[in-house]
Amino acid sequence: MIMIKNTLFLQALKGESVSRPPVWMMRQAGRYLPEFIALRDKYDFFTRCQTPELASEITVQPIRRYGMDAAILFCDILVIPQAMNVEVQMKPDFGPYLPCPIRDQKSADAMIVPDIDETLGYVMEAIKLTKEKLGDEVPLIGFAGSPWTILCYLVQGQGSKTFDLAKKLCFTEPEIAHQILQKVTDTTIAYLKAKVDAGVDAVQIFDSWGGMLSPTDYTEFSWHYINQIIEALKDHAPVIVFGKGCWFALDTMANSGAAALGVDWTCSPKTARALTGGKITLQGNFDPSRLLSPPSEIKKMVHEMINEFGKDRYIVNLGHGILPYINVDNAKAFIDAVKEYEG
Amino acid sequence: MIMIKNTLFLQALKGESVSRPPVWMMRQAGRYLPEFIALRDKYDFFTRCQTPELASEITVQPIRRYGMDAAILFCDILVIPQAMNVEVQMKPDFGPYLPCPIRDQKSADAMIVPDIDETLGYVMEAIKLTKEKLGDEVPLIGFAGSPWTILCYLVQGQGSKTFDLAKKLCFTEPEIAHQILQKVTDTTIAYLKAKVDAGVDAVQIFDSWGGMLSPTDYTEFSWHYINQIIEALKDHAPVIVFGKGCWFALDTMANSGAAALGVDWTCSPKTARALTGGKITLQGNFDPSRLLSPPSEIKKMVHEMINEFGKDRYIVNLGHGILPYINVDNAKAFIDAVKEYEG
Repeated sequence: MIMIKNTLFLQALKGESVSRPPVWMMRQAGRYLPEFIALRDKYDFFTRCQTPELASEITVQPIRRYGMDAAILFCDILVIPQAMNVEVQMKPDFGPYLPCPIRDQKSADAMIVPDIDETLGYVMEAIKLTKEKLGDEVPLIGFAGSPWTILCYLVQGQGSKTFDLAKKLCFTEPEIAHQILQKVTDTTIAYLKAKVDAGVDAVQIFDSWGGMLSPTDYTEFSWHYINQIIEALKDHAPVIVFGKGCWFALDTMANSGAAALGVDWTCSPKTARALTGGKITLQGNFDPSRLLSPPSEIKKMVHEMINEFGKDRYIVNLGHGILPYINVDNAKAFIDAVKEYEG
Repeated sequence: MIMIKNTLFLQALKGESVSRPPVWMMRQAGRYLPEFIALRDKYDFFTRCQTPELASEITVQPIRRYGMDAAILFCDILVIPQAMNVEVQMKPDFGPYLPCPIRDQKSADAMIVPDIDETLGYVMEAIKLTKEKLGDEVPLIGFAGSPWTILCYLVQGQGSKTFDLAKKLCFTEPEIAHQILQKVTDTTIAYLKAKVDAGVDAVQIFDSWGGMLSPTDYTEFSWHYINQIIEALKDHAPVIVFGKGCWFALDTMANSGAAALGVDWTCSPKTARALTGGKITLQGNFDPSRLLSPPSEIKKMVHEMINEFGKDRYIVNLGHGILPYINVDNAKAFIDAVKEYEG
């Protein structure tokens, strides 16, 4: 077993006291770095995901440039529907597009719970290559979308302000919706376990669209399935759950087997600590648009944020993915502010 | 002075005890009714807004069909930028588009605080015509966007998932942002006062994008200006403030001069009452997508919602605007459920 040198991130996940909080940024890999853009212009989206040499290279780029305390594997949440026999395209300037969305019993039945090695073996190869490239410097995070968030794309067929077609299926044909959600959950559990076996040190579940649901509907259509994943994974690796807009569920999440909870920027550090009873590691919550502020202001705000969350049981991060056009100096100011922090 | 027969809505705004709560639906006018769609296919968006005969007709259509307890004038929040000398187009299947967005000192300087009668007299005419058509049956609500929400469109130039360009202006050139916000605030105050003089019985401020801001930024860029409007209007008419995603500010709002606060569906009735100290009238918060449920289920959920909010200090509504393609029977089930309510 390799001992990782930079233990800040794993210590924070265990709730241990640290000299300063660890820092990484959601979407740190594969979005805004000039060295990534050079690759993006040569290879299309799923080629980058499915080619271990490219995915691992993109994963380590931000670590080389900024020295974050954790790497996150470059990949996409929609590799799961692809593996389940659903076509997913990534259209430039449009986003994900599923030409045959799942909206009835027949198409739900056609979704398979796949063999992970056969369908997603390239992810495991990318993990092994990335671990080699990272050496024993920093831990590696693997991720998956929440079943509800995957269902949003499966049913809507593309991004949406309301995901009303996804909700319509849940509200008018709940049996079909639950069948889809369970298939996605079973696939995701096998996928994340395989990732841990391949070498990731922690996993994060992204519930990007959980905040579109009422608390009651969230419990039924999102949390029920996220919790299955937590329970299945927690003895294999620490599980971080990030639900954008899911402030209303933070108390429920805090009483689960999750090791840490992501928080977005609409929930103040003080409120997030209160809602979670001060007992679980929190991760977040800098407004990604605040990286547009001047670097000196970014540093000041990061220090205030750390003081408000407290340096322990805390992982510095953005409150959502980094914007695609953030200046490298501004991203650097965010990371440096944490490294310069003296509590 | 005309006495309005159906006093439920105005009583709820005063906090008086009622036999059942009043009900109306955000975007009830001008979206989904067949009789509206017939007009929409004949006249373009701003023609409908700017022609008092059409605007008043669209306003009373849902009242005739369903008998809500309040009417809301058909109009758009972007008539304010138009009146301030900024071109606004409404593109089909795209939404608002401002060909010359406001992103620097020069364009901010070019925005005028207009004479309301000259620029928005058509709205006042529509109000007078609508009051005639409504007779003394139900009260009429007038509305405006919050200054922050208007700034989002002014700067971004169109809808956005992040309104990052609007935020960029606020975070890098706050003086210019505040100049724009103050001009919009001054115009909005004059506009809403003129609406009250023309006959509306209450006003609602829509802060559609307040929930994109952190609590700190919300205070500076949104609430500061909303509160100016409340203070200027509250002695003229009751003011309802609806901030989508603004659960984090409900406590601040509850201590303002607002008569009622709108709540979206991510905040449970119990949480909304707790955050507002149980002391102010609340309005909401049915998930608009839940109108896709079968009518019998809608009725059951509406009754549960009323029981959770309590029948007093409460106005039944959706948690955001009605979806454009909701079936008339489902909308009717929502309204009927309230009328059939027996506490």
